[in-house]
Amino acid sequence: MRIRFVTTNPGKIEEARARLGPRGVDVRPHAARPTELQADTLEEVARHKAESVRGRAPAPYFVEDAGLFVDALGGFPGVYSRHAFDTIGCRGILRLLAGVPARRRAARFRAVIAYADRGGRLHLFEGTVKGRITARPRGGNGFGFDPIFEPHGLDRTFAELGTAEKGQASHRGRALDALAKHLAVKGRV
Amino acid sequence: MRIRFVTTNPGKIEEARARLGPRGVDVRPHAARPTELQADTLEEVARHKAESVRGRAPAPYFVEDAGLFVDALGGFPGVYSRHAFDTIGCRGILRLLAGVPARRRAARFRAVIAYADRGGRLHLFEGTVKGRITARPRGGNGFGFDPIFEPHGLDRTFAELGTAEKGQASHRGRALDALAKHLAVKGRV
Repeated sequence: MRIRFVTTNPGKIEEARARLGPRGVDVRPHAARPTELQADTLEEVARHKAESVRGRAPAPYFVEDAGLFVDALGGFPGVYSRHAFDTIGCRGILRLLAGVPARRRAARFRAVIAYADRGGRLHLFEGTVKGRITARPRGGNGFGFDPIFEPHGLDRTFAELGTAEKGQASHRGRALDALAKHLAVKGRV
Repeated sequence: MRIRFVTTNPGKIEEARARLGPRGVDVRPHAARPTELQADTLEEVARHKAESVRGRAPAPYFVEDAGLFVDALGGFPGVYSRHAFDTIGCRGILRLLAGVPARRRAARFRAVIAYADRGGRLHLFEGTVKGRITARPRGGNGFGFDPIFEPHGLDRTFAELGTAEKGQASHRGRALDALAKHLAVKGRV
């Protein structure tokens, strides 16, 4: 089956293709520009994004919203991670955590997918990965805050993983897995 | 005349009353909860906020959106100032600027008011104050990032000014002045 992924982020497209392609889902980018709410949760943002492209993107389609939540910073940058990345970047997060020891650098990456099925009904899928903020950026793959996030159980950052490896380990990979499972149960693929 | 100010921030109500009351405008708070867009500009956010309470708040009413834009941080926290304040706070901004000398700590506070007139037409009013981020927080008045912002030409932060003084000097005061001028020209007050 073919599904549109409403995003202009080539890195996200690549991750979705690597994860869903082998399961018979043909992921195509769609450039409809969604509006995004300022909201407390990724769920609200993703739901609203999906609603905002209704009629402009051909169903079935999905949107995704993700964020990095740093415990010692009260959950910052959270829902507004992209803006924080575009302005203060990885260096800003590291500065905010200067002097904070490894055991207090816990963080989560979360992703929420809002999928509009052929009938236009919305379904939400979530993925979370726990880990910690590193002392300095490491690795050249991925995008966003990947170079400063080390998931539990790995001694590498997201930016030190290849696309396939990151798909296995990442919040987005987990949300994509949940979507794939839903599609398989529905007998779509 | 009576105008509703759609906000739940008592500090903003107080500033608006101090500024508009003497000009014959009776400012009343209204608790309709607007939705806020993630957008690049305060203008877009304010316009959308005003639209989102249409029919729920009695016209004439206005909403306001404000932000602190720090040059050395690429405009951060900008449109997302409230979230940054709620998470990393004044201390976070100071950490991000650690070691940055006074001459490179330029910042602007901006406010945009979206006013829906009796006929429901929207009008935007803007106020900007240039200044700099201080080395440490000073003063106990105001709210948000007031303790770390020193406007040009004053040796005090916004949090070291009284409400009336801040109204004279502040971005919100300037936007309120522009609204008051509009109302006077229209012969409403």
